[in-house]
Amino acid sequence: MIIVKIGGGKDINTKSITNDLASLDEKFIIVHGANALRDELTEKLNKPKKVITSASGYSSVFTDEESLDIMMMAYAGIKNKRIVEMCQQAGINAVGLSGLDGKVVQGKRNNGIRVRENGKLKIVRDFSGKPKSINAELLNLLLDNNYIPVLSVPIIDENNFAINSENDDIVTVLKNAMNADKIIQLIEAPGFLDDPSDPNSLVKNISKNELERRESQVEGRMKRKILSLRKLFNNGEATVFISDGRTETPITDALNGKGTIIQ
Amino acid sequence: MIIVKIGGGKDINTKSITNDLASLDEKFIIVHGANALRDELTEKLNKPKKVITSASGYSSVFTDEESLDIMMMAYAGIKNKRIVEMCQQAGINAVGLSGLDGKVVQGKRNNGIRVRENGKLKIVRDFSGKPKSINAELLNLLLDNNYIPVLSVPIIDENNFAINSENDDIVTVLKNAMNADKIIQLIEAPGFLDDPSDPNSLVKNISKNELERRESQVEGRMKRKILSLRKLFNNGEATVFISDGRTETPITDALNGKGTIIQ
Repeated sequence: MIIVKIGGGKDINTKSITNDLASLDEKFIIVHGANALRDELTEKLNKPKKVITSASGYSSVFTDEESLDIMMMAYAGIKNKRIVEMCQQAGINAVGLSGLDGKVVQGKRNNGIRVRENGKLKIVRDFSGKPKSINAELLNLLLDNNYIPVLSVPIIDENNFAINSENDDIVTVLKNAMNADKIIQLIEAPGFLDDPSDPNSLVKNISKNELERRESQVEGRMKRKILSLRKLFNNGEATVFISDGRTETPITDALNGKGTIIQ
Repeated sequence: MIIVKIGGGKDINTKSITNDLASLDEKFIIVHGANALRDELTEKLNKPKKVITSASGYSSVFTDEESLDIMMMAYAGIKNKRIVEMCQQAGINAVGLSGLDGKVVQGKRNNGIRVRENGKLKIVRDFSGKPKSINAELLNLLLDNNYIPVLSVPIIDENNFAINSENDDIVTVLKNAMNADKIIQLIEAPGFLDDPSDPNSLVKNISKNELERRESQVEGRMKRKILSLRKLFNNGEATVFISDGRTETPITDALNGKGTIIQ
């Protein structure tokens, strides 16, 4: 079982990816992003991201009902349906699902954040959270009947509300639930770069032990990325391929080790 | 088996509909519209409907790739996912699907239209067409495992492209494929009105023979509506309930004959 995570960057070559996937012998599940499209829509609709600052001075993106609507448009709407369409054209009988559908990705909503407003402390709570479990029965029902699931946010929380969540975390929970032994992550870079600003600094192989060392050396978004990579190895063995999603044959390239292999 | 068609008008009370559906004993499939939302998005994104006029003087809406994207945002994105979310909150384990997913609604793309452009005749072809068949296996697979399908456009054409289609036509094809014996159509009116501008002109009962007579008396959109109602009776018996989708208990009201019953 392979999990194919398609990044949401604007240069990701989805057509090549779906064509390349059609020749895979193994079963697979697609998880995709759509951040470039979401940002584009956010701009066109003049709904900039809301950022809140907690009383303790920590800033974070605030997902309100409107941002969730935009997420549904970009991720579960255009992107999911266009990927399913490309899959069908490549001969893959894809079924697109958000985490809400059949409660396929269940999560827990984040607790509220304490903010100071007009001098008063209050708790605000957005629609975001962490994935906790997978409806593996539904995914296996589809896979056993030769349908390929194509998953996107939002996911569903403990009270059956739609919430935003990180795809990296979804992939980790999915890997454990479905016993996937390979994870292909297609991004807008040749693979894992020693220096993110230098495309020639590709790291061909990383051991899972080395991930820990690297995590302590970096900060911000990259630190979170490495942390979620590490979590992929917490339950059972797996091989992670981080590879270029912009080539003509992104899946073949990844499996042939043209990007980074972590194991 | 019941098909519940939820109209896409802005006053349709989707929350009441999903709550009411939760107490149904029979299996059902939802087909929904989202035209009010689509029109709102069209305006916000400043992408007015394109209308073309054929060489023979006949005008029609032209669905280009951009209008299809907007359809995916409104129908398969926000509306489908919000209905699934409301279903989950009501205890219905819904799975939202566009016609592309698992090729669940397969159609045939419309032929091109001859238009005159700068004095020259040319053929233009948009992304619209007619539904022809249903992947009943997938729908039964879901229903047999206690999932409720929630269907929306776009559908998939003979070359695996996404196309726009009329929900009335989808319901007809679906009714035949799934042997549905009841069809509930929830609209922004008390039912079928003798005079569309007079909400007090509700027609409580219509025989299928009477539909033919009425079809010859009306024009435009209403004529097409009645034609598609007539088609519902072409293959096997059925009862059609046209009822108000704005009440507190739209499904109970419909089945209790508060709207129009056609049989």
